[in-house]
Amino acid sequence: MNIVFIGAGNLATLLAKEMSRYGLHISQVYSRTPESAFLLANRLNCSWTTSMNKIIPDADWYIFSVKDDALPELATQLKTNGGLWLHTAGSVPATIFEGRTDRYGVIYPLQTFSKKRNVDFSHIPFIIEANNEHDLDALNEVCKLLTGNVHFLDSEKRKQIHLAAVFACNFANHMWTLAWKLLEEKEIPPEILVPLIEETAAKIQELTPDQAQTGPAIRYDKTVINRHLDMLESEDMKTIYRLLSQSIYKTKQV
Amino acid sequence: MNIVFIGAGNLATLLAKEMSRYGLHISQVYSRTPESAFLLANRLNCSWTTSMNKIIPDADWYIFSVKDDALPELATQLKTNGGLWLHTAGSVPATIFEGRTDRYGVIYPLQTFSKKRNVDFSHIPFIIEANNEHDLDALNEVCKLLTGNVHFLDSEKRKQIHLAAVFACNFANHMWTLAWKLLEEKEIPPEILVPLIEETAAKIQELTPDQAQTGPAIRYDKTVINRHLDMLESEDMKTIYRLLSQSIYKTKQV
Repeated sequence: MNIVFIGAGNLATLLAKEMSRYGLHISQVYSRTPESAFLLANRLNCSWTTSMNKIIPDADWYIFSVKDDALPELATQLKTNGGLWLHTAGSVPATIFEGRTDRYGVIYPLQTFSKKRNVDFSHIPFIIEANNEHDLDALNEVCKLLTGNVHFLDSEKRKQIHLAAVFACNFANHMWTLAWKLLEEKEIPPEILVPLIEETAAKIQELTPDQAQTGPAIRYDKTVINRHLDMLESEDMKTIYRLLSQSIYKTKQV
Repeated sequence: MNIVFIGAGNLATLLAKEMSRYGLHISQVYSRTPESAFLLANRLNCSWTTSMNKIIPDADWYIFSVKDDALPELATQLKTNGGLWLHTAGSVPATIFEGRTDRYGVIYPLQTFSKKRNVDFSHIPFIIEANNEHDLDALNEVCKLLTGNVHFLDSEKRKQIHLAAVFACNFANHMWTLAWKLLEEKEIPPEILVPLIEETAAKIQELTPDQAQTGPAIRYDKTVINRHLDMLESEDMKTIYRLLSQSIYKTKQV
């Protein structure tokens, strides 16, 4: 089986490397930026291009792994061919490929990918979809090589999961960025927070986040809340503190 | 050594149990609510009371582990004695005990405690403080039984760490509560997010949260951001989504 990757970002890089580790053959990498295309192709020992016209027409799968904004345009630039067209976007319907190809689908790994960090794929939920049973079976077989955690869900449910993932991953991580900032301001090494973060996440394996909630907001400890608001110098952080404390307290009330 | 616990909440419960596991003798538990006092005393095989007047006067340590709001009042209710008075509050200065006792300090474990979950103390940072060297040494020795991670920091720094911990733990956990809610609304089992949450936290051991940030806000992917805002039904969640996305993007700009 031959696979072409359209995109060479964090997800494309890690997914292509992992597929290649399981003997799947990546034939070509496209990226708008030559450096990214070259870098990934070099790792995979395959060819690369920065021109959609030069993408090989006889691959089995074409995996689009690019910014959502870029996807519609790129889908019109790839010449119609006989392959299965897939994208990796959480929020984009599979039907974006309709009219351009007869065979299409989605391969969405629910994970956060940074190029600098290797990820253990074996527990990552892969959410897949295809417009025909034959391709869905093949997609399932390939995903089962990578993970024990494959889900068949439609575009509507996948979209909701992607939205939830922004809260669960991106926004949670940003809370850590803000915490780092607060400690760096006072010259306290922020790594002191790492065991707390580990335990905060570990609790979720046993308790629901609702049950796991602790802190001044859930106790409605006004003395602490007001002291904290006084301590915060940034207006943005004051607003965030106030809004999230209210939201925690409201969630409890329900 | 004899220890009295004033308070029987999550932290008091887990700390008292852990101290007792290492052969420290808990003599008495005070709580305003008889059920809590009884429950913890029963676990520790010690006496309990709901009256501050009946607290034994000859203990070595008195550990106040109560809501910040309740601390000043309780500190005036305990009769002056010869023991070391400690509290476990992140944001309260050690000097709250001044005038009530000659020996005082703080024992603050930087962790999130839920009664339903046992915690491995061995990596928890303990932040300690005492108003005299002798007690600080003794406090250090006891904390070193429980953890390999003891820090001597003053009340100002501890207060800042507590504020940072609200972001790192309480607010991050609340993001997971909101994510759970989004999935439950659409009848998707929220546990699908657990591997993502694990990896989000695990990244922090290798990368700074700044480096680890992913998602539509850091990419300034307007298409996704607007789609997500349209999908959110709750006005509160829309506001949180907008505010945190802006904050993520601003942090990158700096």
